[in-house]
Amino acid sequence: MLDHIFAIIGGDNRQGYLANVLQSDGYKVIACGLAQCPGLDPSMKQMDTKHAVGGADVIVLPLPVSTDNVTVQAPFSFEPIYLAEIYACVRSDTMILGGKLNEKLTAAAKSRGILICDYLDREELSILKAIPTAEGALEIAMRETKHTIFGSNCLVAGYGRIGKILSRILRDLGAHVWVSARKYPDLSMIQSEHLMGINMASSTTAAEPLSSQIDKFDIIFNTVPAMIFDKDVLMNAKPTVLMIDLASVPGVDFDVAQNMGIRLIQALSLPGKVAPITAASMIKDTILNILREAM
Amino acid sequence: MLDHIFAIIGGDNRQGYLANVLQSDGYKVIACGLAQCPGLDPSMKQMDTKHAVGGADVIVLPLPVSTDNVTVQAPFSFEPIYLAEIYACVRSDTMILGGKLNEKLTAAAKSRGILICDYLDREELSILKAIPTAEGALEIAMRETKHTIFGSNCLVAGYGRIGKILSRILRDLGAHVWVSARKYPDLSMIQSEHLMGINMASSTTAAEPLSSQIDKFDIIFNTVPAMIFDKDVLMNAKPTVLMIDLASVPGVDFDVAQNMGIRLIQALSLPGKVAPITAASMIKDTILNILREAM
Amino acid sequence: MLDHIFAIIGGDNRQGYLANVLQSDGYKVIACGLAQCPGLDPSMKQMDTKHAVGGADVIVLPLPVSTDNVTVQAPFSFEPIYLAEIYACVRSDTMILGGKLNEKLTAAAKSRGILICDYLDREELSILKAIPTAEGALEIAMRETKHTIFGSNCLVAGYGRIGKILSRILRDLGAHVWVSARKYPDLSMIQSEHLMGINMASSTTAAEPLSSQIDKFDIIFNTVPAMIFDKDVLMNAKPTVLMIDLASVPGVDFDVAQNMGIRLIQALSLPGKVAPITAASMIKDTILNILREAM
Amino acid sequence: MLDHIFAIIGGDNRQGYLANVLQSDGYKVIACGLAQCPGLDPSMKQMDTKHAVGGADVIVLPLPVSTDNVTVQAPFSFEPIYLAEIYACVRSDTMILGGKLNEKLTAAAKSRGILICDYLDREELSILKAIPTAEGALEIAMRETKHTIFGSNCLVAGYGRIGKILSRILRDLGAHVWVSARKYPDLSMIQSEHLMGINMASSTTAAEPLSSQIDKFDIIFNTVPAMIFDKDVLMNAKPTVLMIDLASVPGVDFDVAQNMGIRLIQALSLPGKVAPITAASMIKDTILNILREAM
Repeated sequence: MLDHIFAIIGGDNRQGYLANVLQSDGYKVIACGLAQCPGLDPSMKQMDTKHAVGGADVIVLPLPVSTDNVTVQAPFSFEPIYLAEIYACVRSDTMILGGKLNEKLTAAAKSRGILICDYLDREELSILKAIPTAEGALEIAMRETKHTIFGSNCLVAGYGRIGKILSRILRDLGAHVWVSARKYPDLSMIQSEHLMGINMASSTTAAEPLSSQIDKFDIIFNTVPAMIFDKDVLMNAKPTVLMIDLASVPGVDFDVAQNMGIRLIQALSLPGKVAPITAASMIKDTILNILREAM
Repeated sequence: MLDHIFAIIGGDNRQGYLANVLQSDGYKVIACGLAQCPGLDPSMKQMDTKHAVGGADVIVLPLPVSTDNVTVQAPFSFEPIYLAEIYACVRSDTMILGGKLNEKLTAAAKSRGILICDYLDREELSILKAIPTAEGALEIAMRETKHTIFGSNCLVAGYGRIGKILSRILRDLGAHVWVSARKYPDLSMIQSEHLMGINMASSTTAAEPLSSQIDKFDIIFNTVPAMIFDKDVLMNAKPTVLMIDLASVPGVDFDVAQNMGIRLIQALSLPGKVAPITAASMIKDTILNILREAM
Repeated sequence: MLDHIFAIIGGDNRQGYLANVLQSDGYKVIACGLAQCPGLDPSMKQMDTKHAVGGADVIVLPLPVSTDNVTVQAPFSFEPIYLAEIYACVRSDTMILGGKLNEKLTAAAKSRGILICDYLDREELSILKAIPTAEGALEIAMRETKHTIFGSNCLVAGYGRIGKILSRILRDLGAHVWVSARKYPDLSMIQSEHLMGINMASSTTAAEPLSSQIDKFDIIFNTVPAMIFDKDVLMNAKPTVLMIDLASVPGVDFDVAQNMGIRLIQALSLPGKVAPITAASMIKDTILNILREAM
Repeated sequence: MLDHIFAIIGGDNRQGYLANVLQSDGYKVIACGLAQCPGLDPSMKQMDTKHAVGGADVIVLPLPVSTDNVTVQAPFSFEPIYLAEIYACVRSDTMILGGKLNEKLTAAAKSRGILICDYLDREELSILKAIPTAEGALEIAMRETKHTIFGSNCLVAGYGRIGKILSRILRDLGAHVWVSARKYPDLSMIQSEHLMGINMASSTTAAEPLSSQIDKFDIIFNTVPAMIFDKDVLMNAKPTVLMIDLASVPGVDFDVAQNMGIRLIQALSLPGKVAPITAASMIKDTILNILREAM
């Protein structure tokens, strides 16, 4: 158990849940800019920016920290919270943590000698976040289809963090699951998980183009941030297929899908939407990892 | 491949899907009373009652067959479809199949020498239907919680058909799953599935009352058609618990739950609601089993 | 925690392990006729028959209790242990437990007013024993083949207690698993476990004779106590197939298999052979269930 | 389907099985130096070195290729097979493939302009080989213990290719599985697989030393090629623990284990021992990948 005082400043319900879970873990927690946050435990100690920052040795800013580089993103605060004020009040032994820090914010902190760290850069958080993302994708697939996942033919495009967890879940639910990947080691791993691989390697004659296989799928989950499902591929899809695009850069041609009457759901930032309490808990674990390493 | 002509008469989208899947399996199918059914393949041959009944050797009535014992339940038909007309036009070699046939309808058919059979009586269908029921329960749990199934503490009360499939799914998703049961053989089977059993046997000093364990659960699924979750049990539950009652007879005291602010969702007839295409396909498989046995 | 004094009399290592696990659970235990048993904890209190029986309120005889109906089966005892002496010394409040009690032994006890119970009759033990049986079958399959279970084609004949657990294990290891069964509800359960069913129902035209399917299997596990794999079936098997017969009554024609050069392993009583400590622990759990119900 | 003629030269049964599987896939195959190999299909075409090399466009040498850098490792050949002869007879369009090629052999080939490739360098083969390795480790664990894997407490040290597959298999069999790892992303992945992580990171106060946890394990599998299980750790182990060391560099102090009476099994090169047919098939898949990429 680490001995820390956390100031949780700004943000949406996730910051409220983060404050809650830190407090129930036994830490001292100060909330700031969360007065109207419905998710915040009403018994939580609340302070204004100056006192919160001055009284804490760990400051947690929201995800994303700011949308204007001037104020903290704080939808549940009546008053704006200025980053400059935080930087001015911060104690020399304090660490600032936030999600999606941009270069400007980081540079400004470093120039003042402030320790600052973006928890979104942590690989362990990216892996953990794939769990609520996969569950969210499953929830969408269940809601949007008239058949069960059991027995359906699913394609998971891409075998990164999300692809790994999602394909396993679908398999365990009894779907027939194909996973497309470009590299032989990934195809071996796909095979070792009892999943069916589709070889997308461009360098080999063994490549299996998606266009000749897409007609068997009932549900397609894309996790690849590149335009894979273009007109040539989509024109062979089942008219009843459901496409769920989870990639940060679209992998499905929206216009073509729409023209063809293919249902396409673009689902981004699922963890905060479908499981904000879990997302907050994962951020907490990551923050504690960062603090332990920093000591 | 059996050589049959099916008349699918009345019912909702499920009957439409049933007609579709029989036709795509290669059977001759006549639809009747489904003119406005959005789920029905527009290319399906449609006839009036008299011709449909006279032209088929298997007649499939909906689930439930009738709500007034006079007409077939047929929300997508402008005209009423009279059971008496069906019984009158039926050929001597024809079998009538339906779901939730009551004694009166059955007796009336038998007195005319008509072969009649309720597919809902088939154990294999009850088992298959537990799959969409379990998926539907999972979908509700995902939608209604702010955390993932992964890592949550779940109780499945009862280890019948639904309990078996649901507990396995939750475990595969990474939940901590307890299952309550009354009989030692069930508790052994629960153990063999790597699930945690809760002994509800009233006859033994080893019984573990739910009231002393309920406080650890985030989600509770009830499958037991008996009042298990009464005031004494519920008063120890987490205020944030989500309860999903899947039993045909309520297993959770609705009034107590409401007074205590516990979220309770009563979820009945899930297969037809969450996966009507799958439900139709399962009915098809069962009907084919019945026909094969009858030959 | 029950307050009991156990006398563990006769038997092989399993009785030794049973004495050990009861003692480490906190019970008072007396061993008798186990002086040379290598599995027995050397610190265990040992007594002769008269004192052991007189000092205990629960007497546990081995599995099987006796092979001659006169003495207890006791390979680790120099002296014979007479059942008559046990029956004579037993206190009126004592319960005798044993495995595979025959009618004569039971009748003799009952005529003396002695409480006697066969733990092998307990369904929960039969279910639990399927776990070491399935693991033992897997171990044999691994040892006797030159290929992995992963990717192999396996048949599990029969979907009883052993079939259920074994087929699941093979599936989880990445085998392609078919399960044969005679009843539709079993076939539905097989399907719900993502296994491939083979319909053996004799009453239907949908039956799929094993003889036309057996050629695809690398490993066949039989759990059905009836001659299923006769000449007509075996003649179509792969010459390299491995057959493991787990049924109490042979399900594979031994002579035919031998003549055809098919490898056949008859594997009976696996729990005591491959996992005697686990078997003893399962017997312990069952005995405690019996005692709790008797109180 | 590629159009190739393979010469399979030297080696043990695995080379025989490799020749067989290539031939049954439809390729032309010449065996050389395998006359006495019991695993080789008797119908296989056999030639002497000169003709085999001259007639093929792909030459497959064994694993390892040579133990003396002069002759091919060929236990089933009466005559020595000289590498120099192979290099001399090889056609300019031919590719040589082998396992564990050393620098000298590779350099000698390259200086002659011969295409040469070590299939053991391929990551996809290393991943696939983890499957028979994990099954072999499981087989040893089953054989060497008196209890089931189900319900046992297992430690898998290391979360590389073998650790990933082995821990999953043990979990699916119902063991309680802990996995030790040094990096947070690995610990997140372990968590996402519903396994229990043990943090071995030296850089953090959250590290959990093995010495304080080892006492709960019944079976320990080591996959880390570094001395992790030294005296300080082993002294706290259960006396009945079974240790299986799968790492290429010992991870368990052999002398200490022996002095303490701890059972330790060093299990290397499992794929070729427990599943040579599968190993040959995986080498075949890898060779075909190499050939496809070379074209």
